Amino acid sequence: MLIAVSKNQVCSVIKKILVANRGEIAVRIVRACSEMGIKSVAIYSDADRHALHVKKADEAYNIGSDPVVGYLNAHNIVNLAVASGCDALHPGYGFLSENPELAEICSRRGIKFIGPDAKVIRQMGDKIQARNAMIKAGIPCVPGSEGNLADLEEARKLAAKIGYPVMLKATNGGGGRGIRRCNDEKELLGNYDRVISEASKAFGKPEVFLEKCVVNPRHIEVQILADSHGNVIHLFERDCSIQRRNQKLIEIAPSPQLSKAQREYIGNLGVKAAKAVGYENAGTVEFLLDSENNFYFMEMNTRLQVEHTVTESITGIDIVQEQIRIADRLKLQYKQSDVSYRGFAMEFRINAEDPKNDFLPSFGKITRYYAPGGPGVRMDAAMYSGYVIPPYYDSMCAKLTVWALSWDGVMERGRRALNDMVVYGVKTTIPYYQEILKHPDFRAANFDTSFVESHPELINYATEFPRELIAAAISAAIAAHEGI
Amino acid sequence: MLIAVSKNQVCSVIKKILVANRGEIAVRIVRACSEMGIKSVAIYSDADRHALHVKKADEAYNIGSDPVVGYLNAHNIVNLAVASGCDALHPGYGFLSENPELAEICSRRGIKFIGPDAKVIRQMGDKIQARNAMIKAGIPCVPGSEGNLADLEEARKLAAKIGYPVMLKATNGGGGRGIRRCNDEKELLGNYDRVISEASKAFGKPEVFLEKCVVNPRHIEVQILADSHGNVIHLFERDCSIQRRNQKLIEIAPSPQLSKAQREYIGNLGVKAAKAVGYENAGTVEFLLDSENNFYFMEMNTRLQVEHTVTESITGIDIVQEQIRIADRLKLQYKQSDVSYRGFAMEFRINAEDPKNDFLPSFGKITRYYAPGGPGVRMDAAMYSGYVIPPYYDSMCAKLTVWALSWDGVMERGRRALNDMVVYGVKTTIPYYQEILKHPDFRAANFDTSFVESHPELINYATEFPRELIAAAISAAIAAHEGI
Repeated sequence: MLIAVSKNQVCSVIKKILVANRGEIAVRIVRACSEMGIKSVAIYSDADRHALHVKKADEAYNIGSDPVVGYLNAHNIVNLAVASGCDALHPGYGFLSENPELAEICSRRGIKFIGPDAKVIRQMGDKIQARNAMIKAGIPCVPGSEGNLADLEEARKLAAKIGYPVMLKATNGGGGRGIRRCNDEKELLGNYDRVISEASKAFGKPEVFLEKCVVNPRHIEVQILADSHGNVIHLFERDCSIQRRNQKLIEIAPSPQLSKAQREYIGNLGVKAAKAVGYENAGTVEFLLDSENNFYFMEMNTRLQVEHTVTESITGIDIVQEQIRIADRLKLQYKQSDVSYRGFAMEFRINAEDPKNDFLPSFGKITRYYAPGGPGVRMDAAMYSGYVIPPYYDSMCAKLTVWALSWDGVMERGRRALNDMVVYGVKTTIPYYQEILKHPDFRAANFDTSFVESHPELINYATEFPRELIAAAISAAIAAHEGI
Repeated sequence: MLIAVSKNQVCSVIKKILVANRGEIAVRIVRACSEMGIKSVAIYSDADRHALHVKKADEAYNIGSDPVVGYLNAHNIVNLAVASGCDALHPGYGFLSENPELAEICSRRGIKFIGPDAKVIRQMGDKIQARNAMIKAGIPCVPGSEGNLADLEEARKLAAKIGYPVMLKATNGGGGRGIRRCNDEKELLGNYDRVISEASKAFGKPEVFLEKCVVNPRHIEVQILADSHGNVIHLFERDCSIQRRNQKLIEIAPSPQLSKAQREYIGNLGVKAAKAVGYENAGTVEFLLDSENNFYFMEMNTRLQVEHTVTESITGIDIVQEQIRIADRLKLQYKQSDVSYRGFAMEFRINAEDPKNDFLPSFGKITRYYAPGGPGVRMDAAMYSGYVIPPYYDSMCAKLTVWALSWDGVMERGRRALNDMVVYGVKTTIPYYQEILKHPDFRAANFDTSFVESHPELINYATEFPRELIAAAISAAIAAHEGI
């Protein structure tokens, strides 16, 4: 049986890393550093003074009273990296992670940026450039405009040619924003100015393009590792079709909806895409899979992703450690033939939100927290008993990743672990995920990106009181009744 | 790539299980039940009123004010299983787990005992009978007496024949007790009456036997699964050489000290041993490995073992679930060729003990507890913040199991996770394990059962104050100094 690597490669340059992020992903990066014998430096706003990543890092520096501004100030952060003796910087996801200027500033200041080159970040961040690069490399793309739309007339003609529904997209958009679906010409006429206006406001540029709308696709993405010596491998795919308003909720690896042949095909396509743009470090090539089993390139994420944990669970490869080794200019320590997957992994994003109240964020004090345990359970949490979730950040405060040999095993483990997890004081998405796990279509691995939207009844779960609280209430009632 | 089982078999008879144990193993069994859709019933003494297994089970019944007696009363426990509508009983480890009478009472009352037949428990519990069965089956055994020693004279003659050192052992002993090493005839004469007396007192029978002493062996044990249809497989081996006074501290799977050929050999030997005695359910065949690479049968444990978690981590197979399926008379859902291992797993027994004070138990209130998380970390804990560890039971209150693809990866992950784990209020073995992880012999996978004893210096670690408390103390000192 395969033991791919008997001894991990040791970094020769990187000895101390500034973690330019917060929350669970900052904790995740600190853990990787610790296992590699690398020192870690955390940064924190006043609001994050008591955050877990501050407690776990070797050093921690305050970056100001504003909750957000400090995390977005590339110059200050790189200054801090230099001043604290770091050799490298890990941007995590969100914040500055896909900001090419951060990579450039790092490069100028002699700090290794743990991610791809600024040029590639910029190229992949521009949806038209990315699309053209992929078309050139022979990667299937959704039919659409060759570049930015000149005007409404061009949009109208192109839409008529490729057929409705079509999508109008902000060229510099991302994260599911600046996108509108147009089911017919009337909707196209109505949306055109609106998307241009959104693009200007949200992304600073009024450029938009048009693509054929792939109806109810499955979201399949390929994890890539590429070193600075031209070696590129994939770590198989993830199925992220369980989304709400383009925000992923549950991610699965490998996709239970793909055949072995499809898995091989899409993995190779991911490698081809990464090679075509000279990609370096960890990245993700996202594809749409339509109901006729056609894959289309969607976008490339030039950073670590939230859901990297499911890939780690099935392959055993520590993606964050590999990112750091790549930034150290080490050669990949795995060949494609060394990489195998086993079983299924499923990640649940534990968001402090109230599903019954339109998923409204539910910030506040965690009065009690207990992590689930036992076989096949991984927790990446940014919370603890007594922690007050600040209202300024993303509502995701933990990720529960479960693994089992079989598809039904991973679902049952997910149900058990969600039930095992104790979070009192705020509402979470936990009970909502229990409903998804019960749904026959989900259980049959038959779902696409419309699943959440087309099952509004899943929020109709009975509000459960914690078992222990019920027991306490009953005891109190009995005591009152008996005059104790 | 292998996905051995796409859909787990479902039990047809077992719908509710009484868990005849406490602590982390009771929680472990409850979790397996939950994943299989089986109801669980916990039992608890007054002292365990607030124990975690009581909170996690579907039902929980008090079994009396004495901390221990209730857990050992087979008749009462089986009565409770019947009264609460259980179909089966899981004994865990320790307590009644190797008591053949519990298996018999279960059988008489129509409760499925999740373990082997009473006859096999009895046979393997008698070291002479076990040894004779193994010799008959062609399993290598340590040279020694053919049965109980008749008298000191027989012992003297036999020892002279097979050569010193020899071991005097209580025939009905176990758990490392009722055993004395004799380096020469003088020590044999001095120990003979003492072991007989110990055997009478501890195990109720004065019978003893004699074996050649295997000097500084490695402890290698094979995990077996055997169904009621005659199918027997092994799940590879564990290396449990890191022991203190015959109590295991760290267990590893697979053994980093075995070649692939040795692994195959010992696995097959385990299967042969289990088949020879008509074994059913999960069991462990323990071997000694001497410095000339000879394996000798030591004993068979007819129950789930503490360290089953490392085998689960490398094979992905849920041993407790398989135990339950076997008791339900299902056929094994894995053939030997379906079973593979990946990477290395290491379990640390987190004992509430003070290593610097001769490992004296350190019971009391856990003022703060935070489980380690991130990749490759599994926690099986029986504690939580505010939990008071009662002084009546074993001091092991959690198990940390780490996994990684490589041998050095698993050691680094162990170091990181031990560092990540927060237990305030009691002393634990955590800092001691950090010292073991640093030792060059351990790191080179070069250790035997004498490792702990021959490295007394490993308890000389600096007593570390928690980083957060240091920070708080410094802040307080500054505040005092500045008159804040």
